[in-house]
Amino acid sequence: MKITCAQQELARALTIVGHAFPRRSTLPVLANVHVATDGELLQVSASNGEGVSIVYRLAATIEVHGSIALPAKLLTDYIGSLQANPVSLALQEDTYVCHISCGRSSADINGMDPSQFPLMPALDDEQEPIVLEATELKEIIEQVAFAATQDTSRPIFTGVYLTAKSGQLTCVAADSFRLAVRNLPIAEHLSEALLIPARVMEQLARILPKAGTVEMCITPRRNLVRFHTPSLDFFAPLLKGTYANYQAVLPKVWRTRAVMERQALAAAVKEVEPFARDGSNLVRVTLRGQETQEGEPGTVTLQATAEELGTNVSVIPATISGDDQQEICLNTRYLADVLAVLDMPEIALEVVSPLRPIEITPALASTQYHYVMMPLSTRASDTTQSTPRLQ
Amino acid sequence: MKITCAQQELARALTIVGHAFPRRSTLPVLANVHVATDGELLQVSASNGEGVSIVYRLAATIEVHGSIALPAKLLTDYIGSLQANPVSLALQEDTYVCHISCGRSSADINGMDPSQFPLMPALDDEQEPIVLEATELKEIIEQVAFAATQDTSRPIFTGVYLTAKSGQLTCVAADSFRLAVRNLPIAEHLSEALLIPARVMEQLARILPKAGTVEMCITPRRNLVRFHTPSLDFFAPLLKGTYANYQAVLPKVWRTRAVMERQALAAAVKEVEPFARDGSNLVRVTLRGQETQEGEPGTVTLQATAEELGTNVSVIPATISGDDQQEICLNTRYLADVLAVLDMPEIALEVVSPLRPIEITPALASTQYHYVMMPLSTRASDTTQSTPRLQ
Repeated sequence: MKITCAQQELARALTIVGHAFPRRSTLPVLANVHVATDGELLQVSASNGEGVSIVYRLAATIEVHGSIALPAKLLTDYIGSLQANPVSLALQEDTYVCHISCGRSSADINGMDPSQFPLMPALDDEQEPIVLEATELKEIIEQVAFAATQDTSRPIFTGVYLTAKSGQLTCVAADSFRLAVRNLPIAEHLSEALLIPARVMEQLARILPKAGTVEMCITPRRNLVRFHTPSLDFFAPLLKGTYANYQAVLPKVWRTRAVMERQALAAAVKEVEPFARDGSNLVRVTLRGQETQEGEPGTVTLQATAEELGTNVSVIPATISGDDQQEICLNTRYLADVLAVLDMPEIALEVVSPLRPIEITPALASTQYHYVMMPLSTRASDTTQSTPRLQ
Repeated sequence: MKITCAQQELARALTIVGHAFPRRSTLPVLANVHVATDGELLQVSASNGEGVSIVYRLAATIEVHGSIALPAKLLTDYIGSLQANPVSLALQEDTYVCHISCGRSSADINGMDPSQFPLMPALDDEQEPIVLEATELKEIIEQVAFAATQDTSRPIFTGVYLTAKSGQLTCVAADSFRLAVRNLPIAEHLSEALLIPARVMEQLARILPKAGTVEMCITPRRNLVRFHTPSLDFFAPLLKGTYANYQAVLPKVWRTRAVMERQALAAAVKEVEPFARDGSNLVRVTLRGQETQEGEPGTVTLQATAEELGTNVSVIPATISGDDQQEICLNTRYLADVLAVLDMPEIALEVVSPLRPIEITPALASTQYHYVMMPLSTRASDTTQSTPRLQ
């Protein structure tokens, strides 16, 4: 192998496939990155040995084709330290020593037999992929994946649940106390539901290109899903298990609905957070219509108490519909999480009663996104999140 | 007390005095910040109970004078979370409850008796202070303090050593393997040398204003030094002990001197660092004159080896004076540290022999700054930094 490419591009490729480097692995070859020519491109690949593999393709001037496995951390740090000049890689095929030169710097790095590196999964050419805009996929992941749990004792809740049927892609994540659902109109159909680890989806969101489309399809052995763009292949493992019947949790009715500016609510949550922090993140939210007539303007009040230290209140204007007054206790962190990933100017808070799940949706287009939270109990003996639960 | 001030200014004041919040303290009052009116200003103070105290003064509209001690973390987080509006503080003097309001948010915070808060040290008005430009003081600290050790088993080396005599301020820090000295012409004279903890000096550098002068003087009990600006008083403890005779360590001669671009050397150090990291950060530096005539251009070569993984080399052009060839092993981190704090275009590397201290100075104005490093020994059995030592 003998190639030349731009330092910035190779550094970028190594940073991107670096999301698949295993933290620790029993398979020494996985501490390497696989570098190979592929037609007129250079292909850089890494695999974490647990289903996540990333392949990145970049432009290169190829003099001699070939491939090599090189120590991932050393190569990434070295290429990243170089100045923006052309980088040349020249491989001594018999010794696996790769000579790298760039500007005034050069290195000889001892590689490994590339055939030891695990093969990327083959694909079934007949399968029609789901096609999404990269920006849309990134947004969907950001709006949903954060709601998944990190607690591996309930493995299905560590996943993002994806279905595509009846012209709609639906993406769901939940833990025991909250649920996020995002819908998107779509042309294609998926014969089966997918459950993908939320942390892996978040990695994908971080490295997706800023424009263009992404093709999603399942590998023939049906244990992996591949996200494909011209420069990137991202393989993610599929989790096994039957997902919870999340639709049963979506509230069907509300008794009080408050519409307010998203940024005003986000600012109020930020203001009460220092006081809520010591008390299970509990914030008392009061919805109050100023008049009894429906549609009149009213207020949403957030109130938190730091034991012995003090108490605070933030009041924001809101349009209240339905019952005139409601009070419910929520977790500030769960509120802040959802307000950080939404971007519409107005959101609606829909309440049934103090111990029933509440819903946050966009004030308009409320079918596109649902976020359901369990309230916190305020009985003095029980201010934890352990009751009630979504499931 | 009843006052109104700008949220941004109060938030800034709390962030600045926050550098004096103790991580943990046996004195509960030190978990508070002291807020008091002072003439037409509001004064915010904190103290770490170990000699560091910070007082910050800001503009406020004062209706009723007074003072209060308020929980530092809660107040800082709360004021920091507020939007940019006027903030009002109204104290209930008998209960120590402070009512704070800002825009749509308000809070009642339980304070403490302010008289429990330690008094700021009194000053001797007759003492003539040393006057420095704030930017100069910041630069001096940044160029010197990093060289101090964090190892408290040799307490004097945790300090920055300051003298001011014969028209020159000299600022020194060292550990067992390196020494940084910065000189500055100055009008005033200090009757005694000061030894101030380097970490405290670094805190001061972070909060110094971007312009104006700083007055430095010693408190009457001679256990603290005060740095004073119109908005800031920063008290730092003085360490006891006799400082090492650092002048004996400054090389008097060199045999080879290499002058090169600072940024080129910094880039080369960054490039070899990934390979040096696993081997005691050892980089082999070779100075080589291309011709035997003095002043001819030559090269400086940096070379590092990552055991089993590979080796690399960076070559930079340099003007070599004196002996034509020298090879010396250095610690990449110690090199990177000094290159990060200097800002002149060219630096000089002065070498006597492979086991003698080397010096890095600005290529011009070389009397203003000296950085001396012990080389690493390269005997196979001993690649650690334990020999030789500065002291």
